[in-house]
Amino acid sequence: MRTMSEAREGRATGALEEVAVAEGSPIAELVPRVAEGTVVILRNANGSRRAVGLGLGLRTKINANIGTSADASDLEEELRKLDVAVEAGADAVMDLSTGGDLDEIRRAILGASKVPVGSVPIYQAAVRARRSGEGMVHMTADDLLGAVRDHAEDGMDFVTVHCGVTREVAEHCRTSKRLADVVSRGGSFLMEWMSYNHAENPFYERYDDLLDIAAEHDMTLSLGDGLRPGALADANDSAQIAELTVISELVERARDRDVQVIVEGPGHVPLDLVESSVHLEKSLCKGAPFYVLGPLVTDVAPGYDHIGAAIGGAVAAAAGADFLCYVTPAEHLRLPTLDDVREGVYTLRVAAHAADIAKGVPGAREWDDRVSRARKALDWDTVLSMSLDPDRARTIREASLPADDELCTMCGEFCAVRKMTDVRGSEGE
Amino acid sequence: MRTMSEAREGRATGALEEVAVAEGSPIAELVPRVAEGTVVILRNANGSRRAVGLGLGLRTKINANIGTSADASDLEEELRKLDVAVEAGADAVMDLSTGGDLDEIRRAILGASKVPVGSVPIYQAAVRARRSGEGMVHMTADDLLGAVRDHAEDGMDFVTVHCGVTREVAEHCRTSKRLADVVSRGGSFLMEWMSYNHAENPFYERYDDLLDIAAEHDMTLSLGDGLRPGALADANDSAQIAELTVISELVERARDRDVQVIVEGPGHVPLDLVESSVHLEKSLCKGAPFYVLGPLVTDVAPGYDHIGAAIGGAVAAAAGADFLCYVTPAEHLRLPTLDDVREGVYTLRVAAHAADIAKGVPGAREWDDRVSRARKALDWDTVLSMSLDPDRARTIREASLPADDELCTMCGEFCAVRKMTDVRGSEGE
Repeated sequence: MRTMSEAREGRATGALEEVAVAEGSPIAELVPRVAEGTVVILRNANGSRRAVGLGLGLRTKINANIGTSADASDLEEELRKLDVAVEAGADAVMDLSTGGDLDEIRRAILGASKVPVGSVPIYQAAVRARRSGEGMVHMTADDLLGAVRDHAEDGMDFVTVHCGVTREVAEHCRTSKRLADVVSRGGSFLMEWMSYNHAENPFYERYDDLLDIAAEHDMTLSLGDGLRPGALADANDSAQIAELTVISELVERARDRDVQVIVEGPGHVPLDLVESSVHLEKSLCKGAPFYVLGPLVTDVAPGYDHIGAAIGGAVAAAAGADFLCYVTPAEHLRLPTLDDVREGVYTLRVAAHAADIAKGVPGAREWDDRVSRARKALDWDTVLSMSLDPDRARTIREASLPADDELCTMCGEFCAVRKMTDVRGSEGE
Repeated sequence: MRTMSEAREGRATGALEEVAVAEGSPIAELVPRVAEGTVVILRNANGSRRAVGLGLGLRTKINANIGTSADASDLEEELRKLDVAVEAGADAVMDLSTGGDLDEIRRAILGASKVPVGSVPIYQAAVRARRSGEGMVHMTADDLLGAVRDHAEDGMDFVTVHCGVTREVAEHCRTSKRLADVVSRGGSFLMEWMSYNHAENPFYERYDDLLDIAAEHDMTLSLGDGLRPGALADANDSAQIAELTVISELVERARDRDVQVIVEGPGHVPLDLVESSVHLEKSLCKGAPFYVLGPLVTDVAPGYDHIGAAIGGAVAAAAGADFLCYVTPAEHLRLPTLDDVREGVYTLRVAAHAADIAKGVPGAREWDDRVSRARKALDWDTVLSMSLDPDRARTIREASLPADDELCTMCGEFCAVRKMTDVRGSEGE
């Protein structure tokens, strides 16, 4: 009962039906999109978490990265981040842990999450290799595929696999004289591995085996951009586009096997290139859902990278990107705290919603109109309770209450909204 | 020695020379742009604050609104906000005070500010009328023009005047069945005044007198959009465009008198309409510098309106907007605190810088490249000290220091940057 196979027979799985309800989309519209691959449904065959749809015509979704590192490997803290992310409205989370007991952490997050969970299994393989004392370059292809299988069997809904970092693509990267070279962890592991072993990327060479694992568990493959630009200067260079070209062929091969697939995108991208980079992915990869990290529209703003990601993410999503990986104020500086996670999710939700209005997702604008009608009526309870983050809106307002509780301390008695109500009243309207 | 008159004779005033140095632009390029009105130089003839240029080819600037209200009228606090805004990098401030002793507050801010100061003199006239017990509808045309003159004589560098809210435009607004009607304070005062007095907007009817005052003091007029949309539903409606059309004619009349003029813009605008609304202003108003408030790309995010403004502002500025009015997290909820002011300025600076890169402002991208080169070299001191807000970046990083101080707690030993340095080293590069 694979989602894509069923859709190609014109049938909806339970997961697809669940997405249709959540999106308010007719099943009859979703089925052909899943069949052609322009919509994917995140849910492992063994999973029981919420099914989430990504792609054409659907609401833009937000992913929150959580997980430990060697410097900060407290499982309880990561489970709290999961809760905070989901409460703030994250549609999915990725466990990117590289510290502590990775199996325990992964299973705990999979067990606790109400939303789809993704991972990057090469981290697991790399940590295992490092802890074994052999070093990452001695990982075998079986080690890498084995990590993917472990995650699939545990019920992972989607996994990032950097299949497009081939030796040829790596050569483009070496010759293109990048400013920031490779900034993807998975990408850098594979670059090192290929360089040391003089061998092809196992995720590329054994892509059919990867498809077998994904097919067996109805797990979505997220084709990672190991060579995503890590500086504006590297955006849209030959290495990035060469990798995307390889990825586009892998998208076709996945679809031929009824494996659902999404494509990951940049990264650091100047604002004037964001829209065209989405259009390129959509045309090259035949409408595969696009999952972007940011993109960040400046390199100079550590501490405010969530802002840069909101700008880039909104423009990307309005142009057709489907899934935004959040960026927190801690990006480039440290592992995020609980507050960073919350701020990151809400910030990217502003971007996603703005994009949904722009691209005409059904129902998106109605929310704004309802809030604005309440604002016009000076109905503060409704404005606050219907706002994106009612707790935050209420806290800010209540920190400085006006003398007249129908108004606010910015304009006070000079409130334009109240004045116009008076004017219209005297006009007899 | 008016800036525009001199430029039309091919000469540069001291203020223009100052801007040329600050922007790294040749005087020979700036002079014709000031002459044609596509660049304005903010500086009252009596002013001694920093001269700031707005317009074609120049860096996108940020304005921070400060000022009291009836509910919060502490001059010292507003002076602290001025300091915070300028330290954070605001290029100009506007004093929008409506509470306390307005003359004292205005003069104190003018005296203390290092950057150009703007105001909305109709607030002063309205407050005077209200305190006199007569009520705002009994203000005379002389009261309104008199407030503008008072501000000009005190050295105000630019003033917002809602000249385009004519009776005909008001009629468009009445018939267009807006969701949020008029949300500009100045606009609502004039709507009430015209409705009660059955008379034309004095700022329109006596526009020549206004030009006399501006000309005498070399004060820039900022033609306010009294009917800017206050909800996405009202964006680009007939009222807004009718007002902009009137404003475009007033731009020509100002230029005919060698008065520098900028145009104010929305407001609440869906992301897909932001770019075209900037293009409309630029074509209709013959390249007059465009000063936008936001625009906010959603109505649902009180508490996060600075995020919506960063998205809308970045896209607007990339399309040609020249001057972004900041929006703080307190927008729609209360008067901003010091922290709100700081957050608002830095947030909009991310937007402005991203736009400057996109529109190719000379030198903009070099900053990013320098930061990225330092990041690539794991040169943390340089990354932090050259970043947008070094204090914030340092504080975030130092809250969670890694075991290896060359790295950070997100990736730790799996740092892609370090790994690639090793890979390239082993490749003999």
